[in-house]
This record gives sequence, structure tokens and C-alpha cells, in this order.
Amino acid sequence: MIIIMKNDATPDQRQVVLKRIEEVGRKPHLSEGERKTIIGAVGNGSVSPLDFQILPGVENVVPIMKPFKLASREFRPENSVVTVRDIAIGGERVVVMAGPCAVESEEQTMSAARAVRKAGARILRGGAFKPRTSPYSFQGMREDGLKILAKAREETGLAIVTEVIAPEYVDLVAEYADILQVGARNVQNFPLLEAVGNAGKPVLLKRGMMSTVEELLMSAEYILATGNKDVLLCERGIRSFEKYTRNTLDISAIPVIKELSHLPVIVDPSHATGKRNLVAPATRGAVAAGADGLIIEVHPDPDTALCDGIQSLDPKEFSELMETVANISAALGRSL
Amino acid sequence: MIIIMKNDATPDQRQVVLKRIEEVGRKPHLSEGERKTIIGAVGNGSVSPLDFQILPGVENVVPIMKPFKLASREFRPENSVVTVRDIAIGGERVVVMAGPCAVESEEQTMSAARAVRKAGARILRGGAFKPRTSPYSFQGMREDGLKILAKAREETGLAIVTEVIAPEYVDLVAEYADILQVGARNVQNFPLLEAVGNAGKPVLLKRGMMSTVEELLMSAEYILATGNKDVLLCERGIRSFEKYTRNTLDISAIPVIKELSHLPVIVDPSHATGKRNLVAPATRGAVAAGADGLIIEVHPDPDTALCDGIQSLDPKEFSELMETVANISAALGRSL
Amino acid sequence: MIIIMKNDATPDQRQVVLKRIEEVGRKPHLSEGERKTIIGAVGNGSVSPLDFQILPGVENVVPIMKPFKLASREFRPENSVVTVRDIAIGGERVVVMAGPCAVESEEQTMSAARAVRKAGARILRGGAFKPRTSPYSFQGMREDGLKILAKAREETGLAIVTEVIAPEYVDLVAEYADILQVGARNVQNFPLLEAVGNAGKPVLLKRGMMSTVEELLMSAEYILATGNKDVLLCERGIRSFEKYTRNTLDISAIPVIKELSHLPVIVDPSHATGKRNLVAPATRGAVAAGADGLIIEVHPDPDTALCDGIQSLDPKEFSELMETVANISAALGRSL
Amino acid sequence: MIIIMKNDATPDQRQVVLKRIEEVGRKPHLSEGERKTIIGAVGNGSVSPLDFQILPGVENVVPIMKPFKLASREFRPENSVVTVRDIAIGGERVVVMAGPCAVESEEQTMSAARAVRKAGARILRGGAFKPRTSPYSFQGMREDGLKILAKAREETGLAIVTEVIAPEYVDLVAEYADILQVGARNVQNFPLLEAVGNAGKPVLLKRGMMSTVEELLMSAEYILATGNKDVLLCERGIRSFEKYTRNTLDISAIPVIKELSHLPVIVDPSHATGKRNLVAPATRGAVAAGADGLIIEVHPDPDTALCDGIQSLDPKEFSELMETVANISAALGRSL
Repeated sequence: MIIIMKNDATPDQRQVVLKRIEEVGRKPHLSEGERKTIIGAVGNGSVSPLDFQILPGVENVVPIMKPFKLASREFRPENSVVTVRDIAIGGERVVVMAGPCAVESEEQTMSAARAVRKAGARILRGGAFKPRTSPYSFQGMREDGLKILAKAREETGLAIVTEVIAPEYVDLVAEYADILQVGARNVQNFPLLEAVGNAGKPVLLKRGMMSTVEELLMSAEYILATGNKDVLLCERGIRSFEKYTRNTLDISAIPVIKELSHLPVIVDPSHATGKRNLVAPATRGAVAAGADGLIIEVHPDPDTALCDGIQSLDPKEFSELMETVANISAALGRSL
Repeated sequence: MIIIMKNDATPDQRQVVLKRIEEVGRKPHLSEGERKTIIGAVGNGSVSPLDFQILPGVENVVPIMKPFKLASREFRPENSVVTVRDIAIGGERVVVMAGPCAVESEEQTMSAARAVRKAGARILRGGAFKPRTSPYSFQGMREDGLKILAKAREETGLAIVTEVIAPEYVDLVAEYADILQVGARNVQNFPLLEAVGNAGKPVLLKRGMMSTVEELLMSAEYILATGNKDVLLCERGIRSFEKYTRNTLDISAIPVIKELSHLPVIVDPSHATGKRNLVAPATRGAVAAGADGLIIEVHPDPDTALCDGIQSLDPKEFSELMETVANISAALGRSL
Repeated sequence: MIIIMKNDATPDQRQVVLKRIEEVGRKPHLSEGERKTIIGAVGNGSVSPLDFQILPGVENVVPIMKPFKLASREFRPENSVVTVRDIAIGGERVVVMAGPCAVESEEQTMSAARAVRKAGARILRGGAFKPRTSPYSFQGMREDGLKILAKAREETGLAIVTEVIAPEYVDLVAEYADILQVGARNVQNFPLLEAVGNAGKPVLLKRGMMSTVEELLMSAEYILATGNKDVLLCERGIRSFEKYTRNTLDISAIPVIKELSHLPVIVDPSHATGKRNLVAPATRGAVAAGADGLIIEVHPDPDTALCDGIQSLDPKEFSELMETVANISAALGRSL
Repeated sequence: MIIIMKNDATPDQRQVVLKRIEEVGRKPHLSEGERKTIIGAVGNGSVSPLDFQILPGVENVVPIMKPFKLASREFRPENSVVTVRDIAIGGERVVVMAGPCAVESEEQTMSAARAVRKAGARILRGGAFKPRTSPYSFQGMREDGLKILAKAREETGLAIVTEVIAPEYVDLVAEYADILQVGARNVQNFPLLEAVGNAGKPVLLKRGMMSTVEELLMSAEYILATGNKDVLLCERGIRSFEKYTRNTLDISAIPVIKELSHLPVIVDPSHATGKRNLVAPATRGAVAAGADGLIIEVHPDPDTALCDGIQSLDPKEFSELMETVANISAALGRSL
């Protein structure tokens, strides 16, 4: 940590900073320039930049170490590969998760599962617990929905990823799901992060629509700190001033995360764009930019979907998209 | 709801829309212009604009009704006043809540409580459960902290507002607190919103750093829908590209919320700015713009605070600020 | 245009709206629902939604027509192809523009030109007039720079794209350049847009870091309205709260623009990311998402560049990237 | 400037950095920690952090000095007061500029001028050159408009502030105006900044809707660097994701600018909110937060305004607002 003193900082103020550095178990390192005095705080004593920012005479404090550890590329230089049933995520193959926004009925779910399986998806998505903006909207089929997902797995062999929305439901969802999804709105629901971490199942952690990449990695750190190493990070669009799309897909987050962290990166082009006709271009872009996987909304009949029909592909559109994704993957030396 | 058809929409596509409107229990109302055809969907049948947006030939769908009801000014034209012990929030008096970011010790909390009481605050804030970005940061004193807060209430007569971070803690926190706070990161933690609603205590709901005002009101709707009418809305800064402040205080949100809703509006200038020297100007601005209350971080010794010291006032600064706030309130025909 | 009246609008207020619609040369069309009254304003009379928004009793006004005409896909359903010398932009081939941020010397520019030519670029970029945030930064070689660019064209056959920063320089720059670039900071410099339109040369219009796609198209409309049809739109990243990248590449803007407009879309991955190691993934994503062209910063020796060295590729990196771009293009049925 | 080396930086990479520091005329200052090596670059040699950011082995570069000089509080500790005719801006009195968005006719302008004069405004605003998003919108009365403004000054004694949109119009506008306004869209139109600087008249510089405060100060630096010291900075709302208001008034920018700079701060509540009923609360907030002046849209008959009627006050509303502003100013020890 480096502390930059104000031009008019007094010797007394400087002393306070030096003393404080020693109090927190670090060694101070003074460097006087012609116009600025800089003080380094060397060592491993745990300390927050904010503790120094507030001291009188301090102009700015610069952290040197990243605030996350287990999630960092420095902690683990090689890519992490998360294995779900027999599916390796984070390796050479691009893994596709697909299915309806919500489990609405056995028929709808089975139909979607068969379709996405046929087109090459390996994991079935589908919400049984739905966090909805309005209390008056459909909130999901809950345990009945989980049972339908399990049935779809049995028939199709697809693994299951589904969302869990509160710590109290983690055990229930973990009983049925292969991957526990934490939604964008819960990215900083820390009790939930700890609960899914402790469940011992792989976790798909969605970036919040307001999260910086650094914050996403801090949230991942919560899960990793429980001892659970199987975290998948999901870019799903962030908020900006652009009004035409539901969110703004931050395509650069893919290489940024890969630089800062060893964890696999999944992209959700459905929520990132919010419009059916934008899903295919966004998907192609994500694969080309290096995504390890995709999670795409597919509905057997999007026009009647109980949620998010506007951004769901129908089976034919999905199947065509999968072909293009295969071609792009091949061009980059990967496969589906 | 109004559906705008594309210029090249076919008669068949138009028929599908008309039929769908009837299916959802509304009456279609066709209006053909020279270049555009517009279809209204009249009536009360529950329907989402998205259900129509996806139909072929549809260019755009415009909702006419607001998505929230109980929170709306139309539902209740007069201002709601929330009464906490003998304190009326939302009336003529501007109510000030103040205290440390976190309960750190009995001494620190009692000292803060006495100081803010003396300066004119009527409610003590202080976190016992702390949602922290890093799993390695201080997470709060939990029940011990709640007991300290209760003790401070006993001595000073201040009411207590404190945060609850998960449904499983609602009963515990409600046992001690007068107002349950839902933090910005939990604004769309719907199970938590329902749980605090059902606890039957007043709720201070913080706007998320990524929430639109409309979404904040939708979250309030979750609480109101449980039958709990005592909701306080809190503007605490939103995210923008400006980097100098921690967040961007959306001062216009105060009159916007007052126009759309009957609920009282509280402003948190400490989190909104994130810097101690900006708290006073932001507070003055908030009161002048019409805030019904304030929630301000005050610490007996900010330089040693375990969290957010950088944005905490010391008792002297707070006391001076209260005088200015009293003057501005008086200039607007209100009082502290 | 559709006008939605407030629930409590009076008959008099309604009359004012109806009368106003006739005054602006449109026909009113009244539609009374149980709870809401809606009034359409049919016809072509020129009118702004804001003129009605302010009338008493009006809740909301919804425009039906897009605010741009010549730029719209409705005006011209087929893709526009802009031809620069013998290069067709907007057709089957993905066109690559590359070169240094700024023209620094003849040697540097010739070296960059040869390198990008060899790797497959067809247009040379290079700033002679540099709009710099600081008045103390290098402002460009101006006419001397333009002469160097012309010389590079002569030797390599590359076409030239270079920025013009004020109406007074348009004639000068047009004398040397094949494409006039309008920078992100000038996207709403309307006198400049008219001046470049009137210069009769193709224009590369960069999206502002704060522009919505709709605003970008409105700015294009300024150029098109002069009779100049050769406009290239350039996505170069927008501002968001994410701090790791210089801007946030809005990859979805590519298909969005293609849906709303017939104009070709170019992507600038260098400014969009601001970091050299992110340029390649962003470029791959842009091509896969459907960009018609790229504009990439390449410097013979990025470590000594007078500007933007941090985001410039060296010739070897660029050459490798071109190979990958060729592979992705081929996977999508396009070529370089 | 401080350069932080990567954990795995080699001694050779370190040498390159040390050598480069000397090349740019600074002295290197090495500080080796257990895990990180930090290198300071001491002295005044002109250097950009980006020049070092790109060197191999460098993790991060931290600038120590602010990028603006003449605009900084360090350069001039006391507040600047800009005098326009006999009006001091930046002193004890809060100065109000008011008038219509656009000069539409002599009658409209004179009527507005008399009304705002009567209510206590001291400067008349009114656009003769209008930068409009659409090429098809009213673009202003140009020189005829300037003549009307001059006539209004003659009759009412109000000083005149009006916008200039291109360098070629600066001389013309300066002939009539007392203050030259640079609009938000031109905040980084550097040739225009230089031209208004050289005109030798006070300049009202509006913050761009995408500008950080630091960038605004850099733009002010362009004007100050011409030797023109009379710069007024104007906060007029920035872009965020909130959709209910036209922009988001960044109220904290007032104290932030006052901390970083000595220049007076004006607030434009009309553009910042974009809605007539929000102008009064935003104005009150701005004055309470410390604004030195206001610029408010007032139209004799907002319902017929050619532009921005939706956010214009009528004379009665303005007059009432001025009374409240006087009360708040008095509460803070200032006056109108």
C-alpha cells in the first residue's frame, strides 16, 4: 500500500501515518520528492486503504495487492476446470447450457430438454424458483419444478443448472441440481454465497448488473473461501444508458476475467441483450472472445412463455445457432 | 397497453395480436393510421407487455399502467406517515437517524448514541450484521451488537434502525430493532423483502446502486403486499461513470419518488458520497430537495472505525451539520 | 404519436390536447378505456412528443415514428455499401483499417503502413489532428502529418482515414484523406457533421462514449441530410461503471444498428478496451457479431508511441490477429 | 508517478523501467517489498503514466500529480470571482441566470427578460444558435436572435449569456454576449474551447453528460491556458441508467469541484432533470449544496415553446422559486 501525502501535509501528520503503519504490523518506507511525499506500507499486516485515506494530510492511498486471493490468477496460474457429471467446463470444449427461463410444466420442460439435447447442449437450464421484479408475477413451480428437471435429466442425460434464491432453499435445490445458480440480483447476497459454497456443488455465479469485475471476483471469493473450488463466473450484461437493449453485454469482461482469475467464464446472451434477434450475434461474439460456455434461453414455443419469451429462441433458431457456434469454435481451435 | 405494428406487418400478424388480446381477457381496439397501425388492449386482464412484444409484426409495446400499485400515489394520494415509537416520519418534521457504520463495542456505541442524541438525532443507526464485499472483512457483532443497540435505546430513548441480511435473521433482529433496514445489495432479495414485510415492523428499504426508481417501488410493493404499510424508501447513491465519489447521489429521486409514491423518502449522504467532506453539502442538498429524513454515519472516533471511517462524521462535525439542517428546514417551513 | 392522459385529467384538459393536435396538422383519435384515455395524433404534421408532454393532464407521450429517416432501414431496406477507392465497405468482405494513433514521423508512419498492408489491412489510419484531453499533450503534426499519410498511400496503395476536428479544417483534410473521421467527442458537433457531409467524401462517424444508438443515427442523419450517402458508423466503446477497461465495448450495438439502419458498422477495439491485451479478443468478438470492418491501432514500436501506445498492437501481434480474423470471417461465410 | 511491478517481473524488465524514467528527465526511486517492487519517478519531467503502463513487467502505474494545473485549487487556493458587467460570480451572492431555451421572437424574449428581471435574476439566458439532436429541428434565429438579446439587455439591464457552437461563430457571438456558453455536447470540442478562450470574454462551460469532473477541469484548462481566467463551470446532469429523469443531477459535483478547483460552480436544474416539476426541488438542492449560481429555463408560455418547453418554468413558478432560493441562501449566510 502506498500513501501519498498532500503538498501541505505537516511533519506531525506524516508522523501519524508512519505510526499507524507500524500499529497495523507493516513497515513504513518514506520517499520524499520535491513536491510530494510518498509513504509505502510494506509487509503482510491486514489493512484497508480506507484506514489511511481518512488520516489528516493524506491525499490518496493506493492499494498494491488485489482484494481477492483464492479467485486470483496469481493464486492459481493455470485455468480451473470444473467438472459436472462428465462435463469439463473451462477446458478445450465450449459447453452450452440451454433451456427455458422457467419450468412451466413437464411437457414444456421435456420438450425443451429434448430439443436442446438434440442441438448439442449438454446442460439443461430452467428456473424452479424465479426472482421476479413484481410480487404479482409468476414465482416459479418450486419443488415441483425441481422434480420435473430431475426427470428431464433422467431421460436426456443432460446435467441440470437451476437457480437458488435464498439460503433456506439451498439444501432442497442441491438435492436435485448439478449446478447451483446464484442470480445477478443475489451476487452480493453474502449469506447465500456462503450457503451455496457449503453445499459442495458447483456454482454458477452471475455478475450483477451493477457489479464491477473486481466485485464479481470478491463474490466468488466468498464461495471459494468455504472450500468449494467449483465456481463458474457468468457475464450476463451490465446496466448502461443505452436503452435499446435490456442490458449491455460486457464482452471485454471475458478476457479481463481470464487475466485476473483462473475460473471458467460463461456468457448469458439472452439476459445480456433481452431481445431474441440479438441473441445469435451476441452468442457468436462471446464464443469468439473466449467464453468457456454459454447459457441460452430456449423455449419450445416462446410466444407463450410465462417469462422472458421475448428473449427466448425456439428450437430451430437454437439449432442453427449451435451450428454457427461450432464453426466459430473450430476456427479458434476449440469444439462444442 | 398499446401495441404498435411494424410498417410491413401482414393482416395475419395483426389477427394474431387481436386474438391474443382477447385470450388474456382484454378488448382490442384497432386504430389504423396512414403509416402505422396501433392496437390498444383495453381492460384489466393481467398481461405483460413482453407477451406481445415477441409476436411477429409487432414493433413496440407501450404499457399504460404503472407496474406497482400499493406503492403508487394513485393508490394513496396523501403522504404516508410511518410512526416509529413516538416519531412520525413523512410529516412536517425532518427525522435524523445517525450513528456508526457498525456496532464495534458497547463503549463506542453508547458514546455515538449520546453524541447524536445531544445533536438532535432521534433514531440510532448501527450495523450488527454487516454485508461486506470481502469475506475477510469484519462481519459484525451480530446478536451481541443487537443487545448493545437495545441498551443504547434504553439509556438515550433513541429508536433503533439496523440491517437484516437474510430471512433467517429477521425474527432475531426484529426482537431488538424498531426499524428493519434492507441494504442496497438486497433490494431485490425478494425472500428477504417478504420476510421483513411479515415481521410487522417498519422497514427502511435502500435503493440498490443499480435500481431505477421504478424498481425500488416494485421492491417496496413486495413489502406492502404482505400487508405491512410502514415502508421508508432510502436514496443512497447510484452507480455512474464518475470516479471521484463512491456513488452518485440522485437528488432528483426525492421529488420523483414523491410524485410517483406516497411513501416517505430518506437520504443517506454518507454512502452516497463516500467521503467525509462531502457529507455536509449532500445533506444540505437533500433536505432542501425535500427529504423526509436522513441517515448519517457518525463515529466517536472515525479514524479508528472498523468500517466506513472514511465517510463518518465525528460528533462535532455532526452537531454543526444539524444546526445547518435546522436552518434549511426552517427556511422551507419544516423543522427537525 | 400517442398521448396517454392521467386518470384524473379533466374534459377541459382533454380538449386542449385535441385542439393542439389539430393545430400541428394532425388528426386526433380518441380512445377511452375504463381507466385510461388515450389519444392518437395521426398524420405527418411535424411535431415533437415534448410539445404534448407538458400539457396539463398528460401522463405520457409515446412517439410512433423513429426520429431519423435517411439513416433508417425502413428508408432503405438493403444494406448500403460505401466504396472507398476500390474498397467496398458493407459488403461480403470485412475491411480492416489499421495504423498508429498519431502520425509522429514519416519513418514511423511508413513503417506502420507497410506492416499493416502486409498483414492484410486495406486502409491506413493515423491522426494528423489529435483532440487531446489535456492542452499540454501532443496535438498532432497537422498538415505535415496529412502529407505523410498521402505519401504512405502512394507507396502502399492503402486508402487513408484520418480525423478532422473542426469545420475550418475540413477542406484541408479532405484534400488528402479518402475517409474523413469524426471522433467520439465530436459526435454531436453539428456544424462539423454538416461540414464533412458537404465535403463529399465518405465519413467514418464514431459513436460518442455517451451516445445511445439512436443518437448516433441522428448524427448520421445530419451527414445524410447534406446529400452525402457514404457514412460508416463506428462503435468504439461507451462509458459504464466498470473501471478495468477504458470503455465498455457495446458488442450488441452491431446487430442493433444493422436492424435499425442500412449503414455499415465498423468496430474500434483499441479505444473500446484501452488495453493492448484485450484488443484481440474484442476484435474476434466484433467480427463474429457481424461487424463490416475494424479500425485497429498498430504502431511499429508501441512502447515509444506519442499517444495510446498502451492500446496499440505491434506488427507481429497485428499479423497474428489478422489470421484469426480471417478464420472467423470464413466460419461466417465472409472474407477479409 | 509510481510504477508497481508484477510479482514475476524480471531484473531486466526492472532495468528497462529505471532507464526509461531517466530518459524522460526524472529520477528513479526503487523500493523492494517482500512481494512487490515499487519504483517512484521523482521530478518534473513531463511524462504520461501510459508510457510506463505498457512496459513489460509493469502491473500498474499511479499518477501522483493532477493532470490540470491552472484550474486547480493548489494553483490558486482562494476562490475565483468572475465579474460580468457589475455582477460578481463566485462570491457571497448566488447569481441567477434565467430565460428561454431559445430566442424565438422579440416579443417572447422581451417578455421573458422582464419577468426574470422582476423576479430577481441578473443575467438573461437564451439560445440564438441551437445545437439540436435532429437536423430537422429548429436551429435558432442566429444573428437575429443575438440582436434581440442585445435589445433585451438594453431595456432590462440584464447581462447576456448565450451559446456558441463553432469556432467560426465566436467573434459574432462575442460581439453581443457578456458570457459565452459552451454546451455539454461541445465540452471536448477543443478548437472551440481555444476560440472562446481567446475571445477574452467570460465563459460558461457546461459539463458533458459523459464527463467526469476531472475531464471538465481539463476542458477548463484549455480555456485558462489561453490566458482567459474567467471560467464558470456548469453542472447540468450526467447520464445514468435511471430513465425517469432526462439526466441525473450530480449534486456532489458542486463540493467536489470546489475542493479540486477555485472556479465558480453554476447549476442548470432545467437540463439536469428535464421535467418542469422537478426544477424547483433540484434548484433548492443545488443552492443548499453550495452552488454559486443557477441557470434556469423560463418561458413566458412554456406550452408553446419551440424547444424544451417541457422543462421550462413559467414566470409565476420562477418567481415563487426565487423566493425559496432567497430563503435557503439566507439560511446559509448568502444572498441573491
